Amino acid sequence: MVSLTPHLKRFGKQLEQIAYRGLDQHLRIGITGLSRAGKTALITSIVHQLTHANRQQLPMWQALAQGRVLGVQRVPQPDLTMLPFDYDGAMTALTSNPPQWPESTRGLAEIRLAIRFAPQGGIKRQLADHLTLYLDLVDYPGEWLLDLPLLELDYGSWCQQQWQWLEQQPWLEVSQRWLQLSQQQSGADETQVAEVAQHYSKLLQQLRLEQGATFLQPGRALLPGDLEGTPILAFYPQQPQQVDQNSALTQMLTQRFEAYKEQVVKPFYRNHFSKFDRQLVLIDSLAALNHGRAQVEQMSQSLQGVLQSFHYGPGSLLRRMLSPRIDKLLFVAGKADHISIDQHTNLLALTDSLMGASGKRIRFSGAQSESMVLSAIRASEPGQVDDGSGPVAVIRGFDQQQNRVMRFPGEVPRQLPPEHFWRQQGFDFTPLAPPRELTVDGPMPHMRMDHLIDWMLGDKLS
Amino acid sequence: MVSLTPHLKRFGKQLEQIAYRGLDQHLRIGITGLSRAGKTALITSIVHQLTHANRQQLPMWQALAQGRVLGVQRVPQPDLTMLPFDYDGAMTALTSNPPQWPESTRGLAEIRLAIRFAPQGGIKRQLADHLTLYLDLVDYPGEWLLDLPLLELDYGSWCQQQWQWLEQQPWLEVSQRWLQLSQQQSGADETQVAEVAQHYSKLLQQLRLEQGATFLQPGRALLPGDLEGTPILAFYPQQPQQVDQNSALTQMLTQRFEAYKEQVVKPFYRNHFSKFDRQLVLIDSLAALNHGRAQVEQMSQSLQGVLQSFHYGPGSLLRRMLSPRIDKLLFVAGKADHISIDQHTNLLALTDSLMGASGKRIRFSGAQSESMVLSAIRASEPGQVDDGSGPVAVIRGFDQQQNRVMRFPGEVPRQLPPEHFWRQQGFDFTPLAPPRELTVDGPMPHMRMDHLIDWMLGDKLS
Repeated sequence: MVSLTPHLKRFGKQLEQIAYRGLDQHLRIGITGLSRAGKTALITSIVHQLTHANRQQLPMWQALAQGRVLGVQRVPQPDLTMLPFDYDGAMTALTSNPPQWPESTRGLAEIRLAIRFAPQGGIKRQLADHLTLYLDLVDYPGEWLLDLPLLELDYGSWCQQQWQWLEQQPWLEVSQRWLQLSQQQSGADETQVAEVAQHYSKLLQQLRLEQGATFLQPGRALLPGDLEGTPILAFYPQQPQQVDQNSALTQMLTQRFEAYKEQVVKPFYRNHFSKFDRQLVLIDSLAALNHGRAQVEQMSQSLQGVLQSFHYGPGSLLRRMLSPRIDKLLFVAGKADHISIDQHTNLLALTDSLMGASGKRIRFSGAQSESMVLSAIRASEPGQVDDGSGPVAVIRGFDQQQNRVMRFPGEVPRQLPPEHFWRQQGFDFTPLAPPRELTVDGPMPHMRMDHLIDWMLGDKLS
Repeated sequence: MVSLTPHLKRFGKQLEQIAYRGLDQHLRIGITGLSRAGKTALITSIVHQLTHANRQQLPMWQALAQGRVLGVQRVPQPDLTMLPFDYDGAMTALTSNPPQWPESTRGLAEIRLAIRFAPQGGIKRQLADHLTLYLDLVDYPGEWLLDLPLLELDYGSWCQQQWQWLEQQPWLEVSQRWLQLSQQQSGADETQVAEVAQHYSKLLQQLRLEQGATFLQPGRALLPGDLEGTPILAFYPQQPQQVDQNSALTQMLTQRFEAYKEQVVKPFYRNHFSKFDRQLVLIDSLAALNHGRAQVEQMSQSLQGVLQSFHYGPGSLLRRMLSPRIDKLLFVAGKADHISIDQHTNLLALTDSLMGASGKRIRFSGAQSESMVLSAIRASEPGQVDDGSGPVAVIRGFDQQQNRVMRFPGEVPRQLPPEHFWRQQGFDFTPLAPPRELTVDGPMPHMRMDHLIDWMLGDKLS
């Protein structure tokens, strides 16, 4: 007779291993930004803070404070068709002399971290002393996120929306010549249409660089990749009166607009967006304030467009198109080191107010939205000086030309200031250089990165 | 009472229209080439000959000779995500002073022609006097076609195949340094592996440009597009002895090789290749003869690889993976104007012999294979001179430096000559400049383009 005991034992062992593996978790976080907001610095900081986890540096990260984080390391990325996020390149730039901000990535990039931790208790604790959370950070251009609202528009409505803002100051100054060019084009000649579209994409680039525009559609006009020169990108918004005439040209542009939605926007959401568990949107409200009222208003429009994309009630397009699983959405107002600490609550209030009535801590089906003010890599030291009438908050750092500077960064408004404010005074939150004396394995100064990490991971490390 | 007659009449009219539309046909032809064979000139010539159809120029095109071709024009391409084939750019180059050969395209390009014709008789004739055949010409890199045999290989067999030829002369001269580099790499460090792979792709480029190599895998190493810098391209063939050790490095390379097959090769075939009705493969046997025996042998290997890809018997990988519909496969030996006319049969015999025993007019399940010798844009005039011992065939044209030249191009071998032949004599079929005095709408001299057109379209215009 054969004894069953060793078989049962082996079976039990296998069951345990299966249950154990079932406890390992994956968390995929999409990270994007509006208006070149410092995404690369943020992701670099997340990776650095996690792989050099230190209680003094990250006091508010609960799992770390409880001594349950055993180690974090970089492991090979799961999706081989994406660019690897170039953490080492970013650290080389930051630690060079003089230090440089890392270059921004183009297109999709990914990095995976394995976080080894001790579960807090309960069933997980009984099954295993240690578990692993695989964290994927996926960096993608903010323009691609702003393509989602296109899915709810037809060509005519899109033209109205675009012409409405392009015809207004301050944009008109830059867009005037293109608007004329577009009006003059009446035939459906492929070469001519491609040329007008080419000029439209140059216009978007110029509006972003010179005027701080953020609501730029279509996103691939700015980052075409392999689609460069193909007819699917050769469309642009016609003047609404022209659209009404429904000429052969309008029909051609409509066809391309629809093809763009079907063959470019939807596949991005199907292949990437729908696989995110959480989403982080980085915004640079200070740069918008520097530019002027129109830019702050447009950033508000962009944020609301983004929120609308996430607001997938039952029956909404997004819900029908894909099964979204994003359960948390965070708006991060970065560069908190460019203002004095007493202004942080104002920056948070401003960010919330830009999201409109529905924006502040909006709850959308099954997911939560929050906003946070932080500095990924702190480039200034706070201080005080007495200007005769009492102590005034200042910050000290280095400007982009590497000169030591001390600044009175001034007040951040709690909401969109009236037009005359910019005429009288305006804002000047000038960019700083990265901090000196960063090293590859030394501490990286920041503000509230521990809050961010706890927001991202807290519940998954319980 | 309501009379039914007008309803019936309308119904009959509708039926007729539906049947009429059902007769319009689509024909999608894939065009690719081995070893920079002059694909752009060939496609330019096809478009020019068709849109300027002229009986004197194209006597062997049956439908034209019968007066049934009513007109051909360019119409918008169906797939908006592909580059438009730049016919106008090619014509500008060819008609400039001095004339230039057009630049080759990178990646996928497409052009559509609408051919209006009168059917020959039968049911089609009874239904309609005139029909339209939509002809799509799709230009894609030959390297992508040579990726297909990868699907039948595992990583170990691929390494054996690659090392076998890279370790032989004349390739060894160029590949030696990389082979050493590859042998030295033993760890699975991502950055180091990406570097060795980067050098491998440079090696392939160098072998092609300097040594006339044609069997270059993987194809995307030469044309990465949006995949530039991603891990899915960061693989290379290890020395077979190293593969046997099954190290972490070998496992990493194997995983990437398999991912490449699944996520790059298969989608190309699914999205593009499986939609071709006919396939044209352009080869430059003369350039291979200029290079040497190894290059001619490798071209033979490439041709057999291509044939193998098309030889989809029941149960073959290709058959299982997709439902291929290619019913005709043509190998075109171009540049027939670079040899004297009496050598054309020899060039045809050589081309056939390079395809191996099974190559000559191979019949594979449901499809036919043929070969043809032609000149897309004839750059020479034939002539004779008497060298004292009787008349000798010559060609007259302009060399790449635009000097008038007269050449005795010499004999083309009917099959692969023995090694000592190259040591004694070799070949010198030097490239010619395009013909002078081409105009955008004037006749374009050629050799056998009418045969090619009849092969492509003949049965579809009946």
